[in-house]
Amino acid sequence: MKTPKRVHYFGKTKSEGNKEMKSLLGGKGANLAEMTSIGLPVPPGFTIDTKSCADYNELGGVLPEGLMDEVKENMGIVEQEIGKRFGSESDPLLVSVRSGAAVSMPGMMDTVLNLGLTDKAVEGLARISGNRRFALDAYRRLINMFGDVVMGVPHEKFETEFDRIKAEFSVTLDTELNESGLEKLIEAYKTVYRDGTGEDFPQDPYLQLEKSIEAVFKSWNIPRAVRYRQINEITGLLGTAVNVQTMVFGNMGEDSGTGVAFTRDPSTGQNEFYGEFLVNAQGEDVVAGIRTPQPVSEMVNWRPEIYEQLIEIKSILENHYREMEDIEYTIERGTLFLLQTRTGKRTGPAAVKIAVDMVMEGRITEREALLRVPANDLNQLLLPTFDPYAKRDTLTRGLPASPGAASGKLSFTAEDAVDRAHAGEAVLLVRKETSPEDVSGMHIAEGILTSTGGMTSHAAVVARGWGKCCVAGAGEIQIDEVNRIISVGGRTFGEQDVISIDGSTGEVMAGEVRKQQPKLSAEFVSLMGWADQHRTLQVRTNADTPEDASRAREYGAEGIGLCRTEHMFFEGERIIRMREMILAETEQARRIALDKLLPTQREDFKGILTAMQGLPVTIRLLDPPLHEFLPQDDQQQAELAERLGVSPEKIRERVTKLHEANPMLGHRGCRLSITYPEILEMQVTAITQATIECRTARIDARPEIMIPLVGIDKELDLLRKRVESTIAATAKEKGYTEILDIPVGTMIEVPRAALTAESIAEHADFFSFGTNDLTQMTFGYSRDDVNTFLPDYIKQEILEKDPFQSLDTSGVGRLVEMAVAGGRGINEKMKMGICGEHGGDPASIEFCQRVGLNYVSCSPFRIPIARLGAAQAAIK
Amino acid sequence: MKTPKRVHYFGKTKSEGNKEMKSLLGGKGANLAEMTSIGLPVPPGFTIDTKSCADYNELGGVLPEGLMDEVKENMGIVEQEIGKRFGSESDPLLVSVRSGAAVSMPGMMDTVLNLGLTDKAVEGLARISGNRRFALDAYRRLINMFGDVVMGVPHEKFETEFDRIKAEFSVTLDTELNESGLEKLIEAYKTVYRDGTGEDFPQDPYLQLEKSIEAVFKSWNIPRAVRYRQINEITGLLGTAVNVQTMVFGNMGEDSGTGVAFTRDPSTGQNEFYGEFLVNAQGEDVVAGIRTPQPVSEMVNWRPEIYEQLIEIKSILENHYREMEDIEYTIERGTLFLLQTRTGKRTGPAAVKIAVDMVMEGRITEREALLRVPANDLNQLLLPTFDPYAKRDTLTRGLPASPGAASGKLSFTAEDAVDRAHAGEAVLLVRKETSPEDVSGMHIAEGILTSTGGMTSHAAVVARGWGKCCVAGAGEIQIDEVNRIISVGGRTFGEQDVISIDGSTGEVMAGEVRKQQPKLSAEFVSLMGWADQHRTLQVRTNADTPEDASRAREYGAEGIGLCRTEHMFFEGERIIRMREMILAETEQARRIALDKLLPTQREDFKGILTAMQGLPVTIRLLDPPLHEFLPQDDQQQAELAERLGVSPEKIRERVTKLHEANPMLGHRGCRLSITYPEILEMQVTAITQATIECRTARIDARPEIMIPLVGIDKELDLLRKRVESTIAATAKEKGYTEILDIPVGTMIEVPRAALTAESIAEHADFFSFGTNDLTQMTFGYSRDDVNTFLPDYIKQEILEKDPFQSLDTSGVGRLVEMAVAGGRGINEKMKMGICGEHGGDPASIEFCQRVGLNYVSCSPFRIPIARLGAAQAAIK
Repeated sequence: MKTPKRVHYFGKTKSEGNKEMKSLLGGKGANLAEMTSIGLPVPPGFTIDTKSCADYNELGGVLPEGLMDEVKENMGIVEQEIGKRFGSESDPLLVSVRSGAAVSMPGMMDTVLNLGLTDKAVEGLARISGNRRFALDAYRRLINMFGDVVMGVPHEKFETEFDRIKAEFSVTLDTELNESGLEKLIEAYKTVYRDGTGEDFPQDPYLQLEKSIEAVFKSWNIPRAVRYRQINEITGLLGTAVNVQTMVFGNMGEDSGTGVAFTRDPSTGQNEFYGEFLVNAQGEDVVAGIRTPQPVSEMVNWRPEIYEQLIEIKSILENHYREMEDIEYTIERGTLFLLQTRTGKRTGPAAVKIAVDMVMEGRITEREALLRVPANDLNQLLLPTFDPYAKRDTLTRGLPASPGAASGKLSFTAEDAVDRAHAGEAVLLVRKETSPEDVSGMHIAEGILTSTGGMTSHAAVVARGWGKCCVAGAGEIQIDEVNRIISVGGRTFGEQDVISIDGSTGEVMAGEVRKQQPKLSAEFVSLMGWADQHRTLQVRTNADTPEDASRAREYGAEGIGLCRTEHMFFEGERIIRMREMILAETEQARRIALDKLLPTQREDFKGILTAMQGLPVTIRLLDPPLHEFLPQDDQQQAELAERLGVSPEKIRERVTKLHEANPMLGHRGCRLSITYPEILEMQVTAITQATIECRTARIDARPEIMIPLVGIDKELDLLRKRVESTIAATAKEKGYTEILDIPVGTMIEVPRAALTAESIAEHADFFSFGTNDLTQMTFGYSRDDVNTFLPDYIKQEILEKDPFQSLDTSGVGRLVEMAVAGGRGINEKMKMGICGEHGGDPASIEFCQRVGLNYVSCSPFRIPIARLGAAQAAIK
Repeated sequence: MKTPKRVHYFGKTKSEGNKEMKSLLGGKGANLAEMTSIGLPVPPGFTIDTKSCADYNELGGVLPEGLMDEVKENMGIVEQEIGKRFGSESDPLLVSVRSGAAVSMPGMMDTVLNLGLTDKAVEGLARISGNRRFALDAYRRLINMFGDVVMGVPHEKFETEFDRIKAEFSVTLDTELNESGLEKLIEAYKTVYRDGTGEDFPQDPYLQLEKSIEAVFKSWNIPRAVRYRQINEITGLLGTAVNVQTMVFGNMGEDSGTGVAFTRDPSTGQNEFYGEFLVNAQGEDVVAGIRTPQPVSEMVNWRPEIYEQLIEIKSILENHYREMEDIEYTIERGTLFLLQTRTGKRTGPAAVKIAVDMVMEGRITEREALLRVPANDLNQLLLPTFDPYAKRDTLTRGLPASPGAASGKLSFTAEDAVDRAHAGEAVLLVRKETSPEDVSGMHIAEGILTSTGGMTSHAAVVARGWGKCCVAGAGEIQIDEVNRIISVGGRTFGEQDVISIDGSTGEVMAGEVRKQQPKLSAEFVSLMGWADQHRTLQVRTNADTPEDASRAREYGAEGIGLCRTEHMFFEGERIIRMREMILAETEQARRIALDKLLPTQREDFKGILTAMQGLPVTIRLLDPPLHEFLPQDDQQQAELAERLGVSPEKIRERVTKLHEANPMLGHRGCRLSITYPEILEMQVTAITQATIECRTARIDARPEIMIPLVGIDKELDLLRKRVESTIAATAKEKGYTEILDIPVGTMIEVPRAALTAESIAEHADFFSFGTNDLTQMTFGYSRDDVNTFLPDYIKQEILEKDPFQSLDTSGVGRLVEMAVAGGRGINEKMKMGICGEHGGDPASIEFCQRVGLNYVSCSPFRIPIARLGAAQAAIK
């Protein structure tokens, strides 16, 4: 049986790879081959493919048979090409060994340099380079790096020796050590190596190489690499490739140097060659940060011809790759070598600018530009962020629940937050967890910090809906509400202390951190325009107030997909009336209390319908269980009792009676409308009155009524009839004779609704997938409690992603598909959308496109993301 | 267009119906036609079909066109057959009008007798009968009945007049009133009629008839009829038929009489003609209970030839119908008439005896016998019940949560119940709701009464599992735990008062009520034998103790389908160790606490495996959230703190930290095994040790390990590997070298598991459908909270049945079907069963049969029901 080819050469002799072969050669290997092919100056070498890594790990840590033979064969070609021999004692060929997976994983994998040096070869190098200090320095670096990275000898042990010898030679900088110092250091390093490994530093260069290759293969599964892949949701890779490449040295004197560069500015996207370099240094010195590199533009003063060459290379790369690239380069005695190129990482604003500029330059198409910008990165263009250069005194890290940057003095209750904010203070609301009672305080605070709850806790969901910064579940923070202090990491902060929270990273920091405000660029506007042309999914918003509705419209919302009505019952007097209604013991008493709520509801709806005129507004009838509206603690109960003129016992009794073991699965949603039809009637009356008043005033109000939590066809049948008769009665009472075409639809958020969608569709004008609750019930996860185990699930790779952030296509998605098929089977043109948190997640949007939904609905601040995501989904 | 035939004649002339036509003619009508056909003496008449009732109601309360013409035509045939004329003033034909739906609905619909009498006709009747008193009495009955039933004049108004006139004539009994008294009464009744309706009592007999027919049609939708259909789950009927039949009179003198009878004893099933009769009386007098009827056996002393004739009719009926029938009969002047026959209602024991006897008599086959006994009625053979003749002082009615009959003194805490029971008292445990902490008290109490919670609350489920009597959700009862009293309906009961509860009806009664003990008859044993021959589904039991396992085995269990392990952690010292484990802060501390639990777990398993030797025992690993094991109140927390030597604050802190908003959807099931693998390891070690010890002692232990709450294939993959390595390690440690074939499977109880069953099946040896939780999550109903709205759902017919009692085939069932298909797609022979409460519900068993499960598992006391249900499902 012929063994498969595992080693792929790149160099002047031949180039066996190209940039499309990333999955086999890794990104670095594929690009080294590609650069070689297009004539860029790359030191020759070869790539051991990712399949070999997979085989190595599958074999339980044994190199595949024949691999080293193939390596030696390729090394022979390198030797021939550059005229040096690996392990030669006169003019040794030195190589680097670097990892390189299909996806860039910076800093996650290990590198060994200067392989091929031995006690004898180092002297050959000294002679041939005419620089013995350089040769010795290269050798001590090899022993250190090989000992540490390949053999696991702690780096500190080498450092200790270095410090001892520097002291002995009375120098402070590494570079100040002379030849005899380096000779001593090499001996000391060898001892460290021997003590740490029980064997001598290998004098066989191929043994050095073999062990290094193994070390790279092993590093694929070290925890930090595994963790990096988890965090970045990288799956489906075979392993890492290994690149073996001729060493070039930037530290061979003042005519040498090294640097990194981007073909455009990765922060702003400006079309300017961007980067830095260090004279007489190796790449690791740049990273180590011992000396400060110079901006690449200053190279023109040092070596103008090299600078010219780099500018030319920028052009070649961009023409060839049609992308912004980053490069690593080394200048060895006046000759430029490229060691790596890859697609350059960039910020959101840069991504947008580069993509749009490249379209303008004729390099890429609009479609390509749309695919180039990670939709989620638009966040950075929309929300204030902390200045990345500002100092951060990080106390702990919670969950990045809602992006943004906020600083404020600590406030421990919603009321306090309201009072102090009204008095002009910037406050941060700090709660163990928030509840609907806290909304006014949450809304007015600069940001919200909770010590429990997850990415989809009340605080997180509400905050995201508003685009308000929130860090949730910062479990290390102890909140002492009585004394109004928090403690974290041994430090204590009170009401007058300022804390900053970063909703994009979850960081909690002491003091105020400098912020940046977003400005929407012309490029952003262009990109959004293209997105709108290419997408077929509509984008609506989840908004409960005229302000949110207007903001969403500015961001491009084409309607409201979810207008929750429960938030409308918390402000000021309304909550009292709501509580009065809940505490009423007869239908008649409830109706009296509801009558008082009707005018405010109507005005709420008028405001929203007006803000959204000409566009559909899907209003969801009351959803949460009634107990969420009642005060839970003694004092508030006493206050309410006095206010309503009943005994506190009565209130307590009612609160106790309404208590539920699992409120998520309790008496809520349309179940409330079944048992208390008068609530539905009040809300529908308010919607109808608002519509009539708007239309009479020539405002094109387009409400849609959505019935939540339906699980049984008869629920919707019965409630739809009740809605229709209420609309008719209200119109009649108002003497309105025009047609009131108010569609009535339902949330699909209970698994049973999806399973029986065909029957439910008989009574629905539209379906809106409430994927938050659908995810809760399909998985059996309470989003308020999921943090007790979900992090373990992600860590142990039981789940790839948090299903509350990105739709679980195989489970929840299957229900969605069934419901789409069921609904469309009854009504081919039935309008269907998604209004869960997933509506703003690009991966989920792609799923929505695939299953044929008509729209996604998300929070106002995610609308541009959804527009771009929808365009990408349509293009894909 | 030809109008459809609506009226169907029965009589000597012709018989247009038969017993198969129940859905069109109703049960009564079909059987009147059938009896006529087989030559039984039935007064002639005709039946207006159920379609006409549906049309009447559909037309909004209008008789279908042409109906009355068809009625008149048929009346003509009756007139000809018996030689009298309807409305004749000389010899009037009188008729009765009776309702009769396809399913017997006793007392739910209305009847009018003596139609055809008018002021003039009554004198004709007087003359022709030679009994003017009888004629007048018939007329006053007509006016009263027609006025009340047809025209809605309150019956009391007639009663008042009757009382007034009886007083005027100084008589006390109705029958003592003489002719002139009756004349006066008729005049008074006419006045009542006129006052109540605004019109005179109709002197047109056809108008009387038409209005009576309408009244019967209308009565189909009166609330008590609708409610009856709901309670008895009667759906799919068109409406009621109307039977118009020649009147015969049992009150024409001492040679007349009336009665009801069953062809066999409906209480015991004994093959003895059973019934009663009244001389000189009409049917309604029997029902009214004014005079006490005589046993039918005594008829031999009154009219031996009629008794002979009845015995002959018994034979004819049983030979013809091959069933136990009930009949209504009247003897008019020495001539016997049958007015009705239908399948006789019977108790569970009677159903069994009659079915088995009829097989022995060669009347029916075993298959028919199996279908004749409603499986649920076996309950009555298995559980002690209250003597139906004992007096009941009913206080309120809760939910019939677990059948049986229990009396005891009130006990308000589990500890108190244990103490007093140990002291020899019979106690009834009364709790707002129970929790796992209460199990010891629940187990020892005579019965359990709760004021909240539904049919599947903790109390209900646990009680049913034990066959312990339980009434749940008796909301009218106020429990004052502090003063240890309950109040209900203005009465108060304390610790020394005895209360009785009927778990089959939900009744709560003051004092002790006399009980009956069950004895299993030979017929029961025969029937079960046949059931086992016919069924293909296996029947397992849900049992957690050796005692339950043995009892289940006696009832015919073929294995344990669900052995819950959590109950094992509550008894005595164990709960302390369990709490110690939960409170431990490190894995090591948890392991130390678990090590103490290991020996008791092992002994538990040995006991159960021994009791079930030779049969499979499916052991479910720990399922409930850990907080269920911790004490919730201050005092108990303080006790625990002292016991464990930690501060009460620490305990409180841990309890607070473990609190969940929705424990049903929280950190439980296999999620515990993911985060605390050491718990799984302890349990699997205990199972393996128990198995090895049993097998070494030549006991054929057959454990199966079941992993609960799996929703993701990787959960099962990971945990299965952990289970297998634990089994291997334990075997190695024990030096056991035989093969340990312990299958590892999973519950399918999370919707996502059903949706992704194909992937999950890759790692499972078996699936067990946990339809309790699957129902909760598919509907989004918390079984602890569902009582707040489910009763309304049943009442409003949104749901036909409580989905926790009978499996929802269209929603939950669809998931089950998907999972079966998914699992069998991977492993054609995969064993699948159901272990939810539905495993003991005959309708659900039928579903299990249909979708191809291998077994059902239910509580020990429901096993005979499941065996019979499975046989019925297989036959159907």
